[in-house]
Parts: sequence; structure tokens; C-alpha cells
Amino acid sequence: MRFNYPRVLEKLTIIAPGLLGASIGMAAKERFLAHHISVWARREETRESLASEQWCDESPEAIEDACSGSSLITLCAPVERIIELAQRIAPGLDSNPIVTDVGSVKTKLSRHCSKALKGRARFIGSHPMAGSEKTGMDNASADLFEDRTCFITPLEDSEPDARYTVKSFWQDLGCHVLQERPEKHDAIVANVSHLPHLLASALASYLSTAIPDSGQFCGNGLKDTTRIASGDPQMWRDIIIQNRPEIIRVIDAFEDELQRFKANIANEEDFAVLQTLADGKAFRDKLDAEHP
Amino acid sequence: MRFNYPRVLEKLTIIAPGLLGASIGMAAKERFLAHHISVWARREETRESLASEQWCDESPEAIEDACSGSSLITLCAPVERIIELAQRIAPGLDSNPIVTDVGSVKTKLSRHCSKALKGRARFIGSHPMAGSEKTGMDNASADLFEDRTCFITPLEDSEPDARYTVKSFWQDLGCHVLQERPEKHDAIVANVSHLPHLLASALASYLSTAIPDSGQFCGNGLKDTTRIASGDPQMWRDIIIQNRPEIIRVIDAFEDELQRFKANIANEEDFAVLQTLADGKAFRDKLDAEHP
Repeated sequence: MRFNYPRVLEKLTIIAPGLLGASIGMAAKERFLAHHISVWARREETRESLASEQWCDESPEAIEDACSGSSLITLCAPVERIIELAQRIAPGLDSNPIVTDVGSVKTKLSRHCSKALKGRARFIGSHPMAGSEKTGMDNASADLFEDRTCFITPLEDSEPDARYTVKSFWQDLGCHVLQERPEKHDAIVANVSHLPHLLASALASYLSTAIPDSGQFCGNGLKDTTRIASGDPQMWRDIIIQNRPEIIRVIDAFEDELQRFKANIANEEDFAVLQTLADGKAFRDKLDAEHP
Repeated sequence: MRFNYPRVLEKLTIIAPGLLGASIGMAAKERFLAHHISVWARREETRESLASEQWCDESPEAIEDACSGSSLITLCAPVERIIELAQRIAPGLDSNPIVTDVGSVKTKLSRHCSKALKGRARFIGSHPMAGSEKTGMDNASADLFEDRTCFITPLEDSEPDARYTVKSFWQDLGCHVLQERPEKHDAIVANVSHLPHLLASALASYLSTAIPDSGQFCGNGLKDTTRIASGDPQMWRDIIIQNRPEIIRVIDAFEDELQRFKANIANEEDFAVLQTLADGKAFRDKLDAEHP
């Protein structure tokens, strides 16, 4: 029998903490995953408030100081800022650290970050599926990653040791870790994450003009179905920009499904209508059984 | 200052209890809304199990006995069976009762039930928006109607006194009551209830073939967005059949919205994309503020 003790990192660096970065820090501190946690934030007020956080051992002004001597650096900025952060930290890296991120789109990011960090650090992309419509450090918690899926998206030539460290780190934070090629990852999340979000937004946007006073007729079904439309619009615009071709492909495919469903309804093909409803139920019941 | 004491009904009759009918019985008993609650179910096993329920005073075999002397009869069968139940009970009614129902589509049902009961009873259609993906008597509860919206859909010529009784009854069960013409009701629910359900079903059905193993990548967003797809397929097929023209109209309108959204994404009209996301968020945040 083999026991999986968490590996203790000498120094964990968190760059640009928001919901995810601060939650990583809290969880890592609580689970003793690092001897020392250094956090860098762009804004001075954030650095000052970090100074009083239990989970943060230091919050230096210079990003180089946060990264110097680090074992593992996590880039937690919004997805469109991660490549520029990798380019920015690369010259100052002095300990051949492993670098990962939390961006929700991976293809372009993984290639560019690997290239920017080549010879200075070993990059392994990550995507913990633990976002929420509630963003920011104020909503962070040590158990955010408990039982969540986290993708890691190494490139073909990435070091097995670095893959293992990043995988173990997320597992120690509570995640189920899946390894996928970045391209495959982006196709999967376009389907299971981006499409649901865009439908929730489109439905909420549609209803805001079709039935402006929907609030007074609101049942739980409408609340559930549109909940994620409360997510940060800027963040989602940036995700869309990063994953544009895959997103257009899945909207096309979904439109075909909806078109068929509507045609069956219009043509009184009620058995086919029932079949779609039953297929949807089977899928959803299975989700519930797998993720109670 | 005026106090709204609940009116106590001499005899409340519940026909064909499922989630809604049994919840009406439990809530009416708990809130002392009726001196006597009579419940009729088609199946003998159901009638036997009703006999041991605290909230049920009797469960006679003959539907005529359940309705005889009644003050208020609620028809709680699935929407496609309500008209036939109204026709069935009409000849035996002996107390000029008020009759209502819980069907989620109202236009055809209201006209037919009123006609079937003319001279024997006064019909006022109702639609409490308190359904759930969990159906059946086993999921019933006395607080199911607490803070839910209930439509009442009287016809032009219905008696003010009957409207008042039905409205008060739902209010006493905990509902916010809205009065609408049946046609207007059906257009509203096609938008705020049926469209969200069909999108959840279409999304779940689409993903079941596109990404059959979605379960392992499942975040809370996907779970929320598809939750109502777990609803009973037969029940939803019947709702679709009852409200077909309105449903086709709203799917058309939603398809236009989605098509515009997709075109903006494809054309890199990122400001317009942000606008849709922001409109959706504003709508959803308002729902949350109004229904915490």
C-alpha cells in the first residue's frame, strides 16, 4: 500500500490572485503544501491587504522578488493577461521553477508561455474548473477546489517530472486531475463550459427584452438555467476571444440540435420530441449520479 | 388596518394528487384552510396510502363521493387529463363548487373546463409555478408554495366571488397571485418557463452525443444550466403539445438572439458580445435581487 503524502514545496508563488489565486493560497496553507507562500499583485492596496492574510507569507512589490527562488509559480490573472505575465517574469527566474496558470482556454496560451519561459522555467498549463459567478479574492475559500475537475495540458515535450508536480499539486488541493492536449481541452470546454454559459447569457439577454418583468413570474427553473449569466462579462468576453473558432463550432452544432427539436415540435413528431427530452434527462441524471 | 384571516373551506377536494396535489393537501391541513379534505386517486394503492396520511381526511373510491358537497375542487392531474376530469365530475356535482386546476398551459383548458362545468360549478384556472424536476407525492411538502408565483386565469365572464376565493386560497398557501388572461399566461410561460426547459433539454441532449463523458468535466455551471432537463419527459411532452404555437414562436425568437450573438462572435464584434453578456448579467442579477 502506498500513501500519498503531499509534497511540500519550498516556495510557492501566486501571481495576480483573484478568486482562484487566493483560494490556491488558502488551500495550500491549510494543507501544508508549501513552506513559504509569496504573492504578487499589481495594485498596492491589494498587496497591503495581502500582508494581513494568514495564508500569505509575503507580498513583495517587485514581481521578481515574488518569483526568485520559487519552486512553483501559478499565474492566476485573467486568461488574456497570462502570456504577457510569463514573458514578464521569464528574465528574472533564477531557480528553474515550474510555472503553471489557471486560464480556461489553453491552446495559444500553452505554446506562448512555453516559448516565453524556455530555458528559464518549465511550463505546464492548468485549468481548474472551479470558477463561479462570484469572482474576486473576497469570495475565495480553502475548499474551492474540493472535488473539482482540473485539467493539466502539457505539451508533447514537457518534462514528466514537471507534469507530475503540477498534477500532484492540484490533487493535493482536492482536485480530480485530467491530462489532455491543449487543443482537445479547448474543444471539450467549448462544449461543457462555454456553450452553457453563452446559452445562459443569450437566454437572459433575450428575456430582458421579451419579458422585461420576468422577475415576477420567476420559478426555480429559470433561476437555475440562467444562474451563470451573472458571471463577469469582461472575463467571459475574453474567454470567447481566446476560444473563438471552437465556440463558433459548438454554437453551430447546438443550433442544429435546437432546429431539429423545433421542427419536431412544429411537425407534431411527438415521439421524437419525447426522445430528445428523455435523452436530456438521461444525460442530466447521469451527471447527478456522478457529481452528487 | 385589515387582517387577512384565511377563509376556512367546508370541504376541499383534491383530485389526482401528485407533487402539487399532495402539497396542496399538506399545506391546507397545516394552515387550517379546510375543515375536511377529501382526496381521490385513480389507483387503489394510492388511495390506500392516502388513508394513512395525516393531511387526508378521506380517500373514497368514487370520484363523485370526493366531490359531493365540496366547496373547492382542485384538479391536479397532468395538464392533458384535466379537461376529461372536469367532464367526468360535472354530472355529479351537487354543491355548485368552485373548481380549479394546476395545469401549466391555460388557453384551451380554461375554455373547455368552463364549458364542461357550466351550470354545475364555477371554474377558475390556476397555475402555481412550483413544479420541480422531482415529481410525485413522495416529494410533496407543506411549504412547496411558499413565496412562489401562482397565476389565476379567469375568463371574462367568471364570477368575482369565485376569483376571490381561488386567489385567497393560493395566497393562504403562501403564493404571490397574478391574474392574467389565459392567452397572455400561455405566452408568458412559453418565454419564462417552457423556453428555459427546452434549452436545458436540448443542451443536455446535444452534449450526450457530442461529449458522452461530460460527467468527468462537469462544473457547477453545467449542472445548474441543465438541472431542469431532469424533469419528467412525458409531462414536458404534454406541456409542449398544449402550448405548441407559443413555444415555436419563442424558440424562433431565441434562435434569432443566438444567431446574432454567434455572428457578433464570428465577426469579432467584441463590444456587441460584451453588451449581450452584460445585458444577461443585468437581467440575472435583477432576478436574484427580486427572488433571493
